[in-house]
Amino acid sequence: MNFEALLAARAGQVDQALDQALPGEETYPAVIHRAMRYSVFAGGKRLRPVLVLGAAETVGGRPEDALPAAVALEMVHTYSLIHDDLPAMDNDDLRRGRPTSHRVFGEGMAVLAGDALLTMAFERLAGCGAAPEVLCPVILELARAAGVGGMIGGQVVDTASPAADAETVHYIHTRKTGALIRCAVRMGALLGGCSDQDLAALTEYGDHLGLAFQIVDDILGEVGEPGKMGKPAGRDRALAKATYPAVYGLEGSRREAARRIGAAQTALAPFGERAAFLAALAEFCGKRDH
Amino acid sequence: MNFEALLAARAGQVDQALDQALPGEETYPAVIHRAMRYSVFAGGKRLRPVLVLGAAETVGGRPEDALPAAVALEMVHTYSLIHDDLPAMDNDDLRRGRPTSHRVFGEGMAVLAGDALLTMAFERLAGCGAAPEVLCPVILELARAAGVGGMIGGQVVDTASPAADAETVHYIHTRKTGALIRCAVRMGALLGGCSDQDLAALTEYGDHLGLAFQIVDDILGEVGEPGKMGKPAGRDRALAKATYPAVYGLEGSRREAARRIGAAQTALAPFGERAAFLAALAEFCGKRDH
Repeated sequence: MNFEALLAARAGQVDQALDQALPGEETYPAVIHRAMRYSVFAGGKRLRPVLVLGAAETVGGRPEDALPAAVALEMVHTYSLIHDDLPAMDNDDLRRGRPTSHRVFGEGMAVLAGDALLTMAFERLAGCGAAPEVLCPVILELARAAGVGGMIGGQVVDTASPAADAETVHYIHTRKTGALIRCAVRMGALLGGCSDQDLAALTEYGDHLGLAFQIVDDILGEVGEPGKMGKPAGRDRALAKATYPAVYGLEGSRREAARRIGAAQTALAPFGERAAFLAALAEFCGKRDH
Repeated sequence: MNFEALLAARAGQVDQALDQALPGEETYPAVIHRAMRYSVFAGGKRLRPVLVLGAAETVGGRPEDALPAAVALEMVHTYSLIHDDLPAMDNDDLRRGRPTSHRVFGEGMAVLAGDALLTMAFERLAGCGAAPEVLCPVILELARAAGVGGMIGGQVVDTASPAADAETVHYIHTRKTGALIRCAVRMGALLGGCSDQDLAALTEYGDHLGLAFQIVDDILGEVGEPGKMGKPAGRDRALAKATYPAVYGLEGSRREAARRIGAAQTALAPFGERAAFLAALAEFCGKRDH
């Protein structure tokens, strides 16, 4: 199977697992379940959960064993998008070309849908039936990555719209986006039964990939096609966000993204052919146009 | 030690553990840590975490072993108050006589402070070092109680301001308040090393106590002294909330609260003297005036 077909197959596997994990839209009280599903099934690329599965495979585990972590991570990612879009935060009306949660369900319900997805992520993980001595460290990974030391810390600094200096941009990017991507490969590796060396190598891969991913996001925010991005270009600049292009310019940002993709792939060397999927995924992230 | 002294000592123990668990106010980025501490140290009665400790003791465990769950539960409770107070939800300016989080830190930061406390609750639990085979079920208890099947489900229906019929009020109360109180005693019991019978008896205690607690809350919302409550009386009625007094009247509500307190105490019979603290705590909850 070529990479794109395998990527689509795994994203489909994640979609199916998410569908099974989320209560049906008619479950009482219906509005919250509709709101949760509206945002989870909004055309996300499923890159984070696919990374979880890929990391499990790379260390010699079965991708299926990592599905609960993949589902939980996508729930956390989705919650963060719902809350980021709120009027009190980025005040976005569109996400991937569709009205944002608070535009459809109202602000209060969007807050609650985010809260519910974050909480359900831990419920799915804690109840997945994996060995407790593996599961507790996995739950800890997710909570740390999503918390004030990770994603929320990055969002706090981002929301404060600080001056775009190199240190601040690095802080925001390694946390707001990087923390969950690093967490994706670490959770997958742990559930795949990794060694300490495996974990260290995959963490390095995740750190480089996470930063590259956000730099590409910044670049697309400047020059991406609105039709593909589902939101207007130049929005970050209009909001005076601390982005890579604001600090390093577009060309400098492109170079750094390419360098990080290369470094991510280099970190996979110890795994040889078993890491083919993760290597191709890094390539794919570097070349994406939305 | 008499009950009130013991209650104060245990609340102090919880305060100390919360202080150790939360990053200092100067930790970067400072604003989120200030916001988290502002709401956690806002004069809460610590009833839920004290219930966790009391349940551990009742089944023959050491209260200290249940402290991580007590801390996590108070973080979840605090997050729920911050989000409930938001303009898009109950739009409250005051909580326990002090300005609410969004009035002090702004709406975006209040959303993030709530998110951060919810996430940190799972981080503290997953990283507390208790035996994984006990910890995973405890984490699952907390996630279920706080999620759409529990507290959030209750909040969703409450926010929708439905007609105040008996079934709806029961649904809201058993989830919005009851779920965390039930969870408190179950987490404490599990960490205290309970038997299945212990767990069933304490769950019955928690279910009755949780309902009684919210009925008393409803009654105080109607007739409590604003100076003690820290918010104006009659606010629930003004918002047309589905409350016990709205369905059963004040006298009917008082009778039901008293009946539930009695039933909670009856459920403790198998534990004899070891449940003296939990029995007194139920009495205390029935008689509180704020």
